[in-house]
Amino acid sequence: MKILVVNPNTTRSMTGKIAAAARAVAWPGTEIIAVNPDMGPVSIEGYYDEAFCVPGLIEEVRKGADGGAEGFIIACFDDPGLDAARSITTAPVIGIAEAAMHTAALVGRSFSVVGTPARAVATIEHLALRYGFERHCRGVCAAEFSVLALEDPKSDAIRLLKSDIRRVVSEGRPDSIILGCAGIAGLSKALSHEFDLPVIDGVIEAVKLTESLAGLGLGTSKANSYAPPLPKPYTGIFARHALLGSGEA
Amino acid sequence: MKILVVNPNTTRSMTGKIAAAARAVAWPGTEIIAVNPDMGPVSIEGYYDEAFCVPGLIEEVRKGADGGAEGFIIACFDDPGLDAARSITTAPVIGIAEAAMHTAALVGRSFSVVGTPARAVATIEHLALRYGFERHCRGVCAAEFSVLALEDPKSDAIRLLKSDIRRVVSEGRPDSIILGCAGIAGLSKALSHEFDLPVIDGVIEAVKLTESLAGLGLGTSKANSYAPPLPKPYTGIFARHALLGSGEA
Amino acid sequence: MKILVVNPNTTRSMTGKIAAAARAVAWPGTEIIAVNPDMGPVSIEGYYDEAFCVPGLIEEVRKGADGGAEGFIIACFDDPGLDAARSITTAPVIGIAEAAMHTAALVGRSFSVVGTPARAVATIEHLALRYGFERHCRGVCAAEFSVLALEDPKSDAIRLLKSDIRRVVSEGRPDSIILGCAGIAGLSKALSHEFDLPVIDGVIEAVKLTESLAGLGLGTSKANSYAPPLPKPYTGIFARHALLGSGEA
Amino acid sequence: MKILVVNPNTTRSMTGKIAAAARAVAWPGTEIIAVNPDMGPVSIEGYYDEAFCVPGLIEEVRKGADGGAEGFIIACFDDPGLDAARSITTAPVIGIAEAAMHTAALVGRSFSVVGTPARAVATIEHLALRYGFERHCRGVCAAEFSVLALEDPKSDAIRLLKSDIRRVVSEGRPDSIILGCAGIAGLSKALSHEFDLPVIDGVIEAVKLTESLAGLGLGTSKANSYAPPLPKPYTGIFARHALLGSGEA
Amino acid sequence: MKILVVNPNTTRSMTGKIAAAARAVAWPGTEIIAVNPDMGPVSIEGYYDEAFCVPGLIEEVRKGADGGAEGFIIACFDDPGLDAARSITTAPVIGIAEAAMHTAALVGRSFSVVGTPARAVATIEHLALRYGFERHCRGVCAAEFSVLALEDPKSDAIRLLKSDIRRVVSEGRPDSIILGCAGIAGLSKALSHEFDLPVIDGVIEAVKLTESLAGLGLGTSKANSYAPPLPKPYTGIFARHALLGSGEA
Amino acid sequence: MKILVVNPNTTRSMTGKIAAAARAVAWPGTEIIAVNPDMGPVSIEGYYDEAFCVPGLIEEVRKGADGGAEGFIIACFDDPGLDAARSITTAPVIGIAEAAMHTAALVGRSFSVVGTPARAVATIEHLALRYGFERHCRGVCAAEFSVLALEDPKSDAIRLLKSDIRRVVSEGRPDSIILGCAGIAGLSKALSHEFDLPVIDGVIEAVKLTESLAGLGLGTSKANSYAPPLPKPYTGIFARHALLGSGEA
Repeated sequence: MKILVVNPNTTRSMTGKIAAAARAVAWPGTEIIAVNPDMGPVSIEGYYDEAFCVPGLIEEVRKGADGGAEGFIIACFDDPGLDAARSITTAPVIGIAEAAMHTAALVGRSFSVVGTPARAVATIEHLALRYGFERHCRGVCAAEFSVLALEDPKSDAIRLLKSDIRRVVSEGRPDSIILGCAGIAGLSKALSHEFDLPVIDGVIEAVKLTESLAGLGLGTSKANSYAPPLPKPYTGIFARHALLGSGEA
Repeated sequence: MKILVVNPNTTRSMTGKIAAAARAVAWPGTEIIAVNPDMGPVSIEGYYDEAFCVPGLIEEVRKGADGGAEGFIIACFDDPGLDAARSITTAPVIGIAEAAMHTAALVGRSFSVVGTPARAVATIEHLALRYGFERHCRGVCAAEFSVLALEDPKSDAIRLLKSDIRRVVSEGRPDSIILGCAGIAGLSKALSHEFDLPVIDGVIEAVKLTESLAGLGLGTSKANSYAPPLPKPYTGIFARHALLGSGEA
Repeated sequence: MKILVVNPNTTRSMTGKIAAAARAVAWPGTEIIAVNPDMGPVSIEGYYDEAFCVPGLIEEVRKGADGGAEGFIIACFDDPGLDAARSITTAPVIGIAEAAMHTAALVGRSFSVVGTPARAVATIEHLALRYGFERHCRGVCAAEFSVLALEDPKSDAIRLLKSDIRRVVSEGRPDSIILGCAGIAGLSKALSHEFDLPVIDGVIEAVKLTESLAGLGLGTSKANSYAPPLPKPYTGIFARHALLGSGEA
Repeated sequence: MKILVVNPNTTRSMTGKIAAAARAVAWPGTEIIAVNPDMGPVSIEGYYDEAFCVPGLIEEVRKGADGGAEGFIIACFDDPGLDAARSITTAPVIGIAEAAMHTAALVGRSFSVVGTPARAVATIEHLALRYGFERHCRGVCAAEFSVLALEDPKSDAIRLLKSDIRRVVSEGRPDSIILGCAGIAGLSKALSHEFDLPVIDGVIEAVKLTESLAGLGLGTSKANSYAPPLPKPYTGIFARHALLGSGEA
Repeated sequence: MKILVVNPNTTRSMTGKIAAAARAVAWPGTEIIAVNPDMGPVSIEGYYDEAFCVPGLIEEVRKGADGGAEGFIIACFDDPGLDAARSITTAPVIGIAEAAMHTAALVGRSFSVVGTPARAVATIEHLALRYGFERHCRGVCAAEFSVLALEDPKSDAIRLLKSDIRRVVSEGRPDSIILGCAGIAGLSKALSHEFDLPVIDGVIEAVKLTESLAGLGLGTSKANSYAPPLPKPYTGIFARHALLGSGEA
Repeated sequence: MKILVVNPNTTRSMTGKIAAAARAVAWPGTEIIAVNPDMGPVSIEGYYDEAFCVPGLIEEVRKGADGGAEGFIIACFDDPGLDAARSITTAPVIGIAEAAMHTAALVGRSFSVVGTPARAVATIEHLALRYGFERHCRGVCAAEFSVLALEDPKSDAIRLLKSDIRRVVSEGRPDSIILGCAGIAGLSKALSHEFDLPVIDGVIEAVKLTESLAGLGLGTSKANSYAPPLPKPYTGIFARHALLGSGEA
């Protein structure tokens, strides 16, 4: 089974890390293909970056579908382009915030989110509402550090992240913690042990959910909300994205 | 006061109609400028078209902001790109579904939406939830006709639309009706009289809301959710959209 | 266009201030008429005062409707009598809490309310729920000062108010602040600058919303919830309020 | 124990009927005193009538409190004046819609409301939301008959009411039915038997709830929402309603 | 009227205390019978204990129904087995958390819960949601003391409980406090006086609600959700619990 | 990886069918062990049967945990005993309604449930609320046929089921259908094709979700809600279920 993991920003090194994390948990028969668009922002922080990552992301999904991918993962914690991606495929499409929240809802009755940039707090709160987990969510904690700092061993970021976890665990008494940002994925195991509760990282859960749905032959419903796009002309630089043929990717 | 109305599809004739509707209700001192992107879909029906209309829409908002626009309207009933547009300006940005629903909430306690393509019903229901009007909304009725048919005097569309209104008025007893699609805007006055309750068309309400906010010096908050985009490189065809300078449009 | 602003308490000096604030933002063609009932409480703090302000308020709305008013504003932050006022007119009727919350929902995704007397916190929370903004509302902060103290330059009230704003901005990270009480209206501009986020005062937003609806010929729906009162006898001191004639004001 | 039942309209014959219904279910030690204001509407249908019934209702509650009443019932299905009445007493105050909905929530998981005039549907839906029963409520059915017709044996009203019950039982499968209007109270027993499910009439449940709370020494909390009114002057015909003395009734 | 109070744990001394509390508030004509199962946990703390208390609890309800009980109370703050008990009787069945929350909703607009073991916080939050009081509930405070410690005069428990009340009253400004655990019932009167707001103990409210419903001839609806169990074989140690005869207890 | 599937009723033939369905979708390295208690009801329809299936179900989970099971599935659409089972293991525990609803939320934005006995409709609606999918759920359709009839080729049940699907698809326009009862699981593939939208059967999705969580080393959080039961004596027939040793299974 081929699963396409789309890192929607254009930073290839990050795509490589996400691919490694995904491959580490995939079933033996699963082939993980990780890509990123070549147009768009180098990282995604906020609504503006989201808007410009989506066309490239969709293009990757379409190419993946043409190439036989049986499942798709959107590897950015804001889950950008999820609905558009779903509309052009009959395969499952999973966002990593979506995967993390579903997982948290299965291992406990409540979660808190840490590591989210202040400007993305409203986005994550909105995703919790959209997916149905607004009551499970005890809060989304605005991080005082930048995501990139987490990769710098000399930065203070890990210490600040742990301090945030300690605080939300004590104040909100959540059953689990979600790492609200793709960059801190590799830390989930160690943090689970340190804090003695599930610390959830969306990428690996998204791999398992996608494998599961695809393995059962379940994909995106075409019945109503995700009906295939209608054939129509597109103009300008997007002309080649028109789905003129059949109305369905 | 300059208000920029962005028709996010690339059909210039529709932009003209929207401009005329907007100008007809603007206060004397308001200058309505109506534009559309030159890249993207010729009409917007569903998530895929939405994804590809947003970059062009954002570009128009940026150009408008540079040109001194003091308010922005997104003239498509799915309110695409609303959050991204808000993040790049301190002026108000209003979507026409948003304007219609706020208006309906001020003239009565409940509304029903008609004229929405089946594939957009989930989008409109989601907007009602996002804006806080899920309890006001008695239902979103999937139209059996195409939007373009409304412009064809020989088509059955008007008859079908009226039949839908009659049914939702009788079954759901809403206080008002929202026309869930930009194409049927011109009909609101006549339908209000025929059905003896407010029939609401988002374009004109959006003009008044935008004038109101801008007139008071109120615009998009930059405090948290709509903080200006961070400066960072963009690649490929979107390279020129990077906001490298100051982090703020 | 004549807009009647009803201050529902009987303190004429407050009516004058509200009138001045309203006139300062009205469009040139708008005539602001500000009145207050001559029966009822001198200020409105809590449910008891509300109950006794409503008959006089309704009487003013009726007189205003007879005198040709095309829009009505209820200038008390509890929005007393809103539904009853709506039932006797086909013109728009807007409450100032309603106007403030709708405005906050258009300039950001969340708001906090400050300056509300402790006994009115439940009322404001309930209005947020009624209007659909319970998720936008990050909290209603009970003020430790009296509303009248705000008008006394020697009092500590302004300092306490600013301290409350500072706290809710830091704790709840709202996109905007609503001043939860008519008495502090004049401060909104200065506070917006000081705290660098929109600080919203319902009176002026109510003027613009009312002008907007009336300008579009939109008013209160008579279809279901706000159907005109039925003709019937009234007894005692309210005998003259019976709408015996036509069932409609 | 003295319980004051306030019929908030001015129709004395209706007060008598309500008193008889209340007495029929009261415990032996309970004295039911039934009153109605002498100012206000002869019946309450919609927001306008509600506004004008409240001052007289509050006056009756105050007189009752002075006379030693230990509990209060507001005998109109719109529960008008409930909050104001609660603010002036430490005794319990119960509305009949409130009593009916609480009872329905204790005898089953869902209810439907019948017998409500079309103009009051929004009010009853709002009460369900306010009291927390919006998920229990399967719907509020707008009656096609007038309340007074129920008292006319030659009218069609009973037949129409039963037809509505039959329909909502079949369509919504509620566990119980609430009679949404004081006038049809006497019918609940017979309808329960005919339709083989609890048919709930708020007046008698309100008596039992009030006896229960008062019997336990539980009354309206004065801590926050229902703090006693502040002492202040009232003007005009309401001058005598000022609570100038102590700030507490 | 016979009311059966079932203490669902097997600790007879606790049954005796609950019986005494219930008898102290019952009307003269009410006979309180208090029982506990002889199989199951000695106290109920968490989901596991709940699961094993329910069969014995149901057995007691069945025996009570056979013996002519006209009302049932489940005297554990988690309200275990409420739905199953309701399905086998036409009499009312009330849980003590349910009774406490309904009461709190009648004496104020908000409540906080104290005295709940940390592991039961999710249960109480879920009951608030189920009963419709999630907006009334300002929070469920996890107690730092064990329930049994409350009975030990030398323990620190009372001091810790009061400290929790002081904190939630100051932070959440609730209108009332609910004691979230059967063991602290006897303290409600004294705490009400000390903190000057209603402190609610579910046992006594449950007695009054049950008397009220039974007194009106109102019981559990058999229409849909609580239809009588279907006749079918049961195996193993539960064989004698099969309701083979008529399908209805 | 060993996964224990517990059919909570005592009908061994049904356990066999469920085992076969589970094995058909399990990954090669997964060992499916299917069991049922030997005490309790032969089938589960309603709250009473649920109450008596839970102790046996918990016993099977404990034995499974002792035997090294790394994941647990509760194979009854009411998800009985889910919380209690979670409290005694650090492995994942999944209910089949839970699995079905999570799956439906990933393949579309809305679902309808068919095949549910009338008495279980409230249960399924409540599960949707508990899991967070009350907005996704377009309705739970009460079946007019018995579950067992589905296994009788001469019965009308399949025809009635299809007629229900046809109706809910047309009226509610859901993106997918959930089969609300374990007995009709085998039909999902064929129905998906016939109705051209995902028809979801909880058993197989539960297998994949359990494999996924267990494969990632994620299990039930012990932090708050599902903390291990406290050690304490149990009496009577349940004495051996006391967890006296360590407080943790």
